[in-house]
Amino acid sequence: MYEKKSDLLLRKNLVDEIKGMDISELQDFASIIRNVIVDTVNQNGGHLSSNLGTVELTLALYRVFDFPGKDMLVWDTGHQTYTHKILTGRAPLFQTIRKKGGLSGFTNIFESPYDSFGAGHVGTSIAAALGFEKAKRLSGEPGEVIAVIGDGALTSGNALESLNQVAGQKSNLKIIINDNGMSISDNVGSFANNFSLIRTGKGYNSFKKQLKTFLHETHLTGLESTLEWIRDNMKHNLLPESIFETMGFKYLGPIDGHDLETLIKVLSNINEGYKKPVVLHIHTKKGCGIEYAEKKPNIFHGVSPREKGIDGEKNTAQQLSFSDAFGYTLAKFADYDEKLVAITSAMDIGTGLYHFKESCEERFFDLGITEQSSLVFAAALALKGFHPVYAVYSTFLQRAYDQIIHDIALQKIPMIIGVDRAGLVGSDGPTHHGTFDIVMLNPIPNIKLYSPDSIQSLIKMMNYISREKWNVQSPVFIRYPREKETITYEDLNRLITQNVKMNPERWELVHAGEEENDTEVIIFAVGTTFKYCQKIIDQVDFSVNLVKVTSVKPMDYQLIHKLFDIKKQKFVVTIEEGIRTGGFGQNLVNYLRNRYNHQIEGVKILGMDDFIPHGKRSELLNNVGLSAKEILNTINSEIEQIKCKHKYII
Amino acid sequence: MYEKKSDLLLRKNLVDEIKGMDISELQDFASIIRNVIVDTVNQNGGHLSSNLGTVELTLALYRVFDFPGKDMLVWDTGHQTYTHKILTGRAPLFQTIRKKGGLSGFTNIFESPYDSFGAGHVGTSIAAALGFEKAKRLSGEPGEVIAVIGDGALTSGNALESLNQVAGQKSNLKIIINDNGMSISDNVGSFANNFSLIRTGKGYNSFKKQLKTFLHETHLTGLESTLEWIRDNMKHNLLPESIFETMGFKYLGPIDGHDLETLIKVLSNINEGYKKPVVLHIHTKKGCGIEYAEKKPNIFHGVSPREKGIDGEKNTAQQLSFSDAFGYTLAKFADYDEKLVAITSAMDIGTGLYHFKESCEERFFDLGITEQSSLVFAAALALKGFHPVYAVYSTFLQRAYDQIIHDIALQKIPMIIGVDRAGLVGSDGPTHHGTFDIVMLNPIPNIKLYSPDSIQSLIKMMNYISREKWNVQSPVFIRYPREKETITYEDLNRLITQNVKMNPERWELVHAGEEENDTEVIIFAVGTTFKYCQKIIDQVDFSVNLVKVTSVKPMDYQLIHKLFDIKKQKFVVTIEEGIRTGGFGQNLVNYLRNRYNHQIEGVKILGMDDFIPHGKRSELLNNVGLSAKEILNTINSEIEQIKCKHKYII
Repeated sequence: MYEKKSDLLLRKNLVDEIKGMDISELQDFASIIRNVIVDTVNQNGGHLSSNLGTVELTLALYRVFDFPGKDMLVWDTGHQTYTHKILTGRAPLFQTIRKKGGLSGFTNIFESPYDSFGAGHVGTSIAAALGFEKAKRLSGEPGEVIAVIGDGALTSGNALESLNQVAGQKSNLKIIINDNGMSISDNVGSFANNFSLIRTGKGYNSFKKQLKTFLHETHLTGLESTLEWIRDNMKHNLLPESIFETMGFKYLGPIDGHDLETLIKVLSNINEGYKKPVVLHIHTKKGCGIEYAEKKPNIFHGVSPREKGIDGEKNTAQQLSFSDAFGYTLAKFADYDEKLVAITSAMDIGTGLYHFKESCEERFFDLGITEQSSLVFAAALALKGFHPVYAVYSTFLQRAYDQIIHDIALQKIPMIIGVDRAGLVGSDGPTHHGTFDIVMLNPIPNIKLYSPDSIQSLIKMMNYISREKWNVQSPVFIRYPREKETITYEDLNRLITQNVKMNPERWELVHAGEEENDTEVIIFAVGTTFKYCQKIIDQVDFSVNLVKVTSVKPMDYQLIHKLFDIKKQKFVVTIEEGIRTGGFGQNLVNYLRNRYNHQIEGVKILGMDDFIPHGKRSELLNNVGLSAKEILNTINSEIEQIKCKHKYII
Repeated sequence: MYEKKSDLLLRKNLVDEIKGMDISELQDFASIIRNVIVDTVNQNGGHLSSNLGTVELTLALYRVFDFPGKDMLVWDTGHQTYTHKILTGRAPLFQTIRKKGGLSGFTNIFESPYDSFGAGHVGTSIAAALGFEKAKRLSGEPGEVIAVIGDGALTSGNALESLNQVAGQKSNLKIIINDNGMSISDNVGSFANNFSLIRTGKGYNSFKKQLKTFLHETHLTGLESTLEWIRDNMKHNLLPESIFETMGFKYLGPIDGHDLETLIKVLSNINEGYKKPVVLHIHTKKGCGIEYAEKKPNIFHGVSPREKGIDGEKNTAQQLSFSDAFGYTLAKFADYDEKLVAITSAMDIGTGLYHFKESCEERFFDLGITEQSSLVFAAALALKGFHPVYAVYSTFLQRAYDQIIHDIALQKIPMIIGVDRAGLVGSDGPTHHGTFDIVMLNPIPNIKLYSPDSIQSLIKMMNYISREKWNVQSPVFIRYPREKETITYEDLNRLITQNVKMNPERWELVHAGEEENDTEVIIFAVGTTFKYCQKIIDQVDFSVNLVKVTSVKPMDYQLIHKLFDIKKQKFVVTIEEGIRTGGFGQNLVNYLRNRYNHQIEGVKILGMDDFIPHGKRSELLNNVGLSAKEILNTINSEIEQIKCKHKYII
């Protein structure tokens, strides 16, 4: 019936059709969808494993419930929602997913009424579902509200605090735990342990054995059948109890999340069957059905377009990401510094810390998706004399804003925080862009914020602050983008062993252009925006000073003063890959205006003012005016104005 | 032995003396300490109930363990640590607590080596303790690490996510749950329910009865004694299981937290007695021993100096706090708007939302200390057409920074967030000052940030955006300080029923002084700093425009343009009770410089650059240059310079 993929992809809304399918039709449909997802992810990149794990669950949910009418479905972390998108009118557009102007890789309330809540960061589904349920009750609407959350997402503070509230709120929420035994990296924590105990049923089996032995030894075997009553009656006490039961939920499961028949049966029972909160624990295989994704699900958690690197450049052995360079260098530093410890929040692969984990596991700590706790944990290690390095994505660091202020900065904790994927991240879009870290960190007292312009520069500043001597007196944040550069591990080794250093708080100056004007352009380029500027500086037909800003905070006042001691009029351009209001540019210009206002002919602050949609990193940089080409255009047009003005004056 | 309080207060460090005391001496000592705490809190304000709950626990801990040498003690939320402070060398200074230059009301690593980790916000102790333990293990140090956390703090995401990690981290952490059955307001959630089930022992008692009946009915009563083995062996399964057991902890308790003898016995057993993580559940009375504090512990959670209001002003019936006015007004609005819902995170009293709770409980939601979840929950209500208002302290809103960006702003959720205690809060000090909300919120797209200058103005803007019509299209934050004003509930009623409105996005202009200069001073005063300026404006010997900034974002460009159309030179002063870098002043000045630079003679941005210690709000405002007196000084000294300069030019 659905043999041709083209058939599937042309159907606008498949929700109603699902309702009419029998099990075998649904199974066929599941494998078609699985293939569509694999093909599309191979083309567009995206989250493969998690999406393959939820194909049957999604079909079963739509088969049983009435979304988004009577019932409501809230997905935690939208990267398990590809099947949901295919079913809900977005099949024809599915091949545009994660492409500029195309479908989002996550749920998005502006994309479809079926996306009840946007979710890029983990752990929000239970709170949102609880809110929806309250709204339904207040309005007297019937129906079920269902949250689907992964076992990994459940380790986050946001999820756990909501979970703890459900029973107290007289809720009938239905929570489906999509348990694949790992989140992005291996899952950790009590919930995870409890899941695995329940899966293996250890406690119950051991009790049965124990009871048998007891009855045999005490010659009470004749009573065995009578005592079965006791055993059965107490079975739920003897099975390792689920945490959810102790939390006041009706607990169902675990069931096979790829068994459509059972899923539909259990979900049908749940549908209006319980007037209390229910947890349904389903066991899925991340990457189910695709051999390579099943085997290495964490590597395939987010895949780049095959054979391609970020921005579609060829991914060769000569290219390394900032993340890899950061993690690799730290791993090397572990040999020099026995106090060095590395901490991640379930992102050992993504942040490159797996290098450290591999070579120095006893000093590596993965605390699950717990940015708040991870920072506090690292702070405690620092207070006991260790040298903690925490690596995290810029967008997820937002979760620990209060801890940065209250636990790290206020207490002047000497530690390093690697702020990975700072700036635009590309196809993951607005929920994942790291465009807030500068405005988040710059106002906080006691901290430093460095911004290497290249991997080389990253390694050199790491050498400077932490190779031989832990030259860290307060929290030091280092932000770097989701980018690869042409550099090899051998290059890194050389930089590390030769201990090539760079003090990031000394900005670097590159001069170009003619000296003949009364005015010069000064470009302050933060981090890797310097690279783009370097490409174009020779094409500027004017006297230009290009400053490589390797430290957003503190600023290099020495260099600033030196530059402004030259008694020429200046046109100041600042460039940062982040929000402008409250950012580096405003702060620098504020300083310059206070001190050198008479010398400033004009100012241009480049950055972003809004949330940025998804698309290729290169496309987005171009859109927001931060690509080499756009920077050149801006500078040239400003220079035109300067020239006109001066002509006019003369 | 310790009958005279003066004896106690002169002793420098009492830790060693504790070790030598017998139970009855300790009991006497406990009541002395209790009295000292009550006297001091009556004098200085502070957290009474929580500190009275931990007197015996603290004594028992110091009796049994060796802090801060071999063992480590981490207090969650320092406001339970007064006994700890008295014992650890700070008795002679205890009467300075919360006073300017005196002891902090919370733990503070810079104050004493006994304060292992600073804690003003809840939920950090377990993560910190886990970090300390890892550090000890890596260094091969023996000893126990103990975290003491309240049942209320345990509802926070930070605490729960760490708790979930403990078992997985092969930790032997000892966690003491100080369960007083309530946090600041009534405690909510599964953990709380589980605690209360365990306290009453319901499940176990019902099983015992059931078993008896069964044995009787089946004529197996003769086997009763034999079957006792089964019963006892399975006892832990038949008691309502503690969540902690399902999470992999050894669970002990509940025990009476005021019974010194039992406490010491159990803690001694714990001391090196378990090679696994342990939860000791103690049951305390918040405010134990003091009748009025026992009866109304949430009102006495934080008490102001008796008979005194904030800043030592007399607390009369004619005075109301911004919090009370906010909560009261909302409660009134509930009559006009059936879609209005109010949400708090365990702060119904502090935020004034108790007014709403009292009159409209079905639309009031307290989600415990879960700022992250509360915001997401409120967002979901908004998406279903409700009109959510969330009230929270500025400092605690920091916990939900990511949710503000990711769930509220990105999704343009139409809701109101009351940012209470914005600015300096006084004696609670740096962990509680609300000095970051402007720099936190100003850079985030899609949101508005209002700042009333007075309670009247707060009510008027609330009328404007939400009385008759829900005039809220995106997240609207309203920040107001921890201050009282001379206004009555009758005044509020009149403002509400007469529907007196004010559009906060239209700033207001007050003019004063002479017209004869070529230069004028323009003061942009954010929120209540306007009040201080108003006091001094007539004392300025110059032409002054004073602008009441009631909306930090958006700015009132119309008024700005009007002001700068007057072709006079301007000296611009901005005033905000918050951090300067990335704040309102920088942002406004940046705009003005871009557009009117030739007209700007000078700029002065008033605000803060650092963490601010504790002290009276009035003292602190003075210290940071934001009191009326200091603002006048600043303006006068700037005017002197302007005058000199002009004389020089002439």
